[in-house]
Amino acid sequence: MESALRIELPPWLAGIAAGAVVLPAVDGRMAYVAELARRNAAAGGGPFAAAVFELASGRLVAAGGNLVVMSRCSSAHAEVVALSLAQQRLANFDLAASGLPDHQLISSAEPCAMCVGAVLWSGVKSLVYGAREEDVRAIGFDEGPKHPHWADALRASGIQVTADVRRRECATVLRDYAAAGGPIYNARNLRHRSKPRV
Amino acid sequence: MESALRIELPPWLAGIAAGAVVLPAVDGRMAYVAELARRNAAAGGGPFAAAVFELASGRLVAAGGNLVVMSRCSSAHAEVVALSLAQQRLANFDLAASGLPDHQLISSAEPCAMCVGAVLWSGVKSLVYGAREEDVRAIGFDEGPKHPHWADALRASGIQVTADVRRRECATVLRDYAAAGGPIYNARNLRHRSKPRV
Repeated sequence: MESALRIELPPWLAGIAAGAVVLPAVDGRMAYVAELARRNAAAGGGPFAAAVFELASGRLVAAGGNLVVMSRCSSAHAEVVALSLAQQRLANFDLAASGLPDHQLISSAEPCAMCVGAVLWSGVKSLVYGAREEDVRAIGFDEGPKHPHWADALRASGIQVTADVRRRECATVLRDYAAAGGPIYNARNLRHRSKPRV
Repeated sequence: MESALRIELPPWLAGIAAGAVVLPAVDGRMAYVAELARRNAAAGGGPFAAAVFELASGRLVAAGGNLVVMSRCSSAHAEVVALSLAQQRLANFDLAASGLPDHQLISSAEPCAMCVGAVLWSGVKSLVYGAREEDVRAIGFDEGPKHPHWADALRASGIQVTADVRRRECATVLRDYAAAGGPIYNARNLRHRSKPRV
């Protein structure tokens, strides 16, 4: 087999000088991530972005976009890309490891079933998202079988969960992507398979 | 930032000549994956493995192990590694894309909350697992807030779900790992955070 699994970052994303971005307010962090989502979609990715910040200082640790189609990897959601890059940069699989500052994941949209788990395992202490699940579903993407009380489960594990930060702005990125004919990948399967309604 | 997210494969895993392994029976496929889990643990990884096979022929497409600690990536569960490698090898983010044969994921253990989502997005048509969630929890790993009817949700999406294939053998790999003092990563956090009970 290959010697590694590689998720290539598009040049605009690889070019972000993480340490140079410092955004003290959560609202500003989301404005930054919403713009990343727009840029990711414009560059051929999905209309989703996420970024890991140091919770207190607002220093950017890593930014990710949805790279499913271009990286040929259905797990390359924005949250997984950002969390994994942050962990590799800090050389630790646990962003809550001793000696590290607390970390926050800012996501332009509510995490899907997979990403809820990815957030839980990552060690972040805070999750903030913009667009809601219904905004994501409205353009045809599925969110999968999420636990009905997933946010409470994260909170019980010590992760703050905050919704609706710049929701309208993030939802507009989704709608603009759909209006421009952006591919709703996996939609073929969803049509074939019928949406899970559990 | 870096130009790519890289999950290095340990040499023994990279050395598997996927196309050369053909296992017609599901039971034999699980025996192979249980042995991969044992080997992954022996090589410093977690006691979990997974592999993607062509459903009808039993040809191995890609094999993965849990590489969380060594690759410094909390999302590098065996299922995610195997599915992602299979997709990159077939140059498609969707293992159900037209022109491809049906695929099956064999996992040595019941998928966690994150991996349930990863399976759903991958395009596999069949999921077979060995050890149950309670076997995984018994040695201290958490499975996260899974939807209570996650298997039904996968089935509603056209994915067959089969449990308990060589469960005892796969559970023994878990117990032997714990008995040998293998790290139960994230256990520190789980102690701090209290286990989600939703």
